[in-house]
Amino acid sequence: MTSPQTLPDTQKAVRWHPPAYDIRVEDVPAPRIQHPDDAIVKVKLGALCGSDLHIYRGHGGVDQVHTCGHEFIGEVVALGENFRSSVQGRPALYSSLKVGDKVVSPFTVNCGECHVCRLGYTARCPEGFLFGSPALEGGQAQYARVPKAGGTLFNLSNPSTWSSALPNDIKQKALSDISDSSLLLLADILPTGVFAALQAINHPKVAPVITGKPWPLCFSKDDISGNEVSFTKSDRVLTVVVIGLGPVGICATVSMLDALATRNVPFQLVAVDPNESRRQKMMTVYKTIDAAGKGSGTFVVLSIDEARTQVKEMTNGVGATAILEVVGNTSALDLAYELVRAFGVITSVGVHGAPPLPVTGRDLYNKNVSLDFGRCPARAMFPPAFDLLVKRQDVFGTVGEPASLIDRIVDLGQATESYRAFDKGEVGKVIFDPWK
Amino acid sequence: MTSPQTLPDTQKAVRWHPPAYDIRVEDVPAPRIQHPDDAIVKVKLGALCGSDLHIYRGHGGVDQVHTCGHEFIGEVVALGENFRSSVQGRPALYSSLKVGDKVVSPFTVNCGECHVCRLGYTARCPEGFLFGSPALEGGQAQYARVPKAGGTLFNLSNPSTWSSALPNDIKQKALSDISDSSLLLLADILPTGVFAALQAINHPKVAPVITGKPWPLCFSKDDISGNEVSFTKSDRVLTVVVIGLGPVGICATVSMLDALATRNVPFQLVAVDPNESRRQKMMTVYKTIDAAGKGSGTFVVLSIDEARTQVKEMTNGVGATAILEVVGNTSALDLAYELVRAFGVITSVGVHGAPPLPVTGRDLYNKNVSLDFGRCPARAMFPPAFDLLVKRQDVFGTVGEPASLIDRIVDLGQATESYRAFDKGEVGKVIFDPWK
Repeated sequence: MTSPQTLPDTQKAVRWHPPAYDIRVEDVPAPRIQHPDDAIVKVKLGALCGSDLHIYRGHGGVDQVHTCGHEFIGEVVALGENFRSSVQGRPALYSSLKVGDKVVSPFTVNCGECHVCRLGYTARCPEGFLFGSPALEGGQAQYARVPKAGGTLFNLSNPSTWSSALPNDIKQKALSDISDSSLLLLADILPTGVFAALQAINHPKVAPVITGKPWPLCFSKDDISGNEVSFTKSDRVLTVVVIGLGPVGICATVSMLDALATRNVPFQLVAVDPNESRRQKMMTVYKTIDAAGKGSGTFVVLSIDEARTQVKEMTNGVGATAILEVVGNTSALDLAYELVRAFGVITSVGVHGAPPLPVTGRDLYNKNVSLDFGRCPARAMFPPAFDLLVKRQDVFGTVGEPASLIDRIVDLGQATESYRAFDKGEVGKVIFDPWK
Repeated sequence: MTSPQTLPDTQKAVRWHPPAYDIRVEDVPAPRIQHPDDAIVKVKLGALCGSDLHIYRGHGGVDQVHTCGHEFIGEVVALGENFRSSVQGRPALYSSLKVGDKVVSPFTVNCGECHVCRLGYTARCPEGFLFGSPALEGGQAQYARVPKAGGTLFNLSNPSTWSSALPNDIKQKALSDISDSSLLLLADILPTGVFAALQAINHPKVAPVITGKPWPLCFSKDDISGNEVSFTKSDRVLTVVVIGLGPVGICATVSMLDALATRNVPFQLVAVDPNESRRQKMMTVYKTIDAAGKGSGTFVVLSIDEARTQVKEMTNGVGATAILEVVGNTSALDLAYELVRAFGVITSVGVHGAPPLPVTGRDLYNKNVSLDFGRCPARAMFPPAFDLLVKRQDVFGTVGEPASLIDRIVDLGQATESYRAFDKGEVGKVIFDPWK
């Protein structure tokens, strides 16, 4: 255990006040180790995320003042007494994490040692909390307390703590080359995009297009009987639609392009958003990607009305095999249902509210639709998200470049105005530097 | 083309009359070839199915008198002129089907030669119709017209027309050994059970338990990076719940047992129904299965209240990884949501109506639930369903045995009373012999 006496008594933090639209930068007590599994992270950068707006707008059912933010990167400055090199049988970081290590945190806490975490479903750890909620102070502050830190944190100073398909020297070089503001994308939006893409492309209903064998022969590893059928070339073109081109939607699109290119799957990829500036951003990102990352397929960016007519035309009236719904509201789901084919898949990673779903059981039955809902298990997705970050430094590179997903880095004094402008769509993704 | 003059002018048929609960056995014109792709089948046996009750009760939005039934087996007595040995580039039966062949029909027509059919999604062929609906006369009659018959029918006289994991001599022997009343299970309920089981066991969210690797390493064929984790023995036990133990639910349970045994997956399988006689039937079926078919796991049959407490206990409060919902109503879905784990799968093969779903987007998000809805592509599932029929002759054997899914075979004169008694739950599955 490292003594926390180097921590100041107070810190600056971005705080939400009920009932809504009330963000203040305040001096609050700096966090302390409360449990032997805790770490204290000195925050280098903390980001503003679209899902912060749920609470900001008063839609979160929350009435308690708290420090905002669930995306942060920083340096370990204190560790609880369960962190020591002799620890065995616990997640690796309990024995290897050191004061001074650079870490990124997923947006939720996860113990890393329960059944749910072991399966990789870290976003639903029974001991998990969301940073930046009444249950756990957030990362838009100078310091953050991370519970279950040996399970939760991702150690960017020690790449041997996670396995990667990348050669070790490339991994190591990337860790020194890639800026903190890009690494911060690992906290939420990049793994969420990777999760959406992997969830869709591995769905059994997508398998016939990928394998070239029909249901159920597409699972032929299991010696299943079926009908031998000759597919045409166009049968094997996978049509995917991404609805919503905010930062997560762009990450989902880039990740889907990579997944399609890696698997050599011919495709039609359609990215949809009602907002023209978001569509332009998406095209700028796409143009930045190198040829290998673009795979063998066509890519179009469309408005909602254009998507309604063109997806039908592109698929001879059949519809898209997979829809990535990256908005999280009723109209996006409604559009997803309209565009999806019979026996298609809708993967929804948006944070949904409580209104009734826009489809009935009969609608879902009549079209044989599959729905995959929910929160990304960010901690489990860090390794593939990191790999994508390394491959796509063309996109996820320097802040301020036209393709960058990060609009600006500002000091905490601009937090109140940044929330307002972000809520109004006047700025893109904003990062706070709490030491600026 | 075979001349249809051997067909009589009229036939006996079970007819539904609006608005509800009005079944009459009537003399109606016998069907004729209407299109060169048609076949006329002399029905040997036609079955009553739970989903016939939707229309029977007046819930189908139907107001037109029509011949009932979508499960039938029989003999080809006439073929349209597109059936001839010289046909090329069309489904095999256009060149190989002969008058006199024994055939079973799936419950829907499918052309077998469009994109949707080639992928194996035959239940949603754009040219498809449901037998026993105003769009297409059903099979509870002496004769039935089968449109797109070269794509739709399954030729039980010519096993070379489908590929099977079974050796050819076993396939051939089974075709002569297995009774028509058992082969008739292929029309709907057995492939629907197989479909439910395969859809669930191949879902990506189930993959960690099966592969022993966490998300996303469970897709390691794609060289994905991830976190190496040691699973415990209990992490790899797959808990599956089947809700609804009518004939389809029993088929789904038997199919899931087979899928688990074939893959050597340790499991806890829970079969749930509020009706005690159905639960007893399920236990009788289970006891009939040989040891190899039971795999390595525990199997329990529970009431709804018992399931509510025991599934939690069996999974340390986590819930079941996969739920097979084989009822098709709101309360069954509601129970499925309650019993499913976070990051679990609900496969629903019941015919759902138009009431709102019992879960919101927030509910689905909060538990990361996946839903797979819809109709079984029966024609595509015939080969694996046939294999299961062959393996499970212990269960799907002789009518009248305690484990048989078929309660009785009656003549058409008993149709009106059979519908009434089936609707009231006084009898199990009834088959009509239109020549008795």
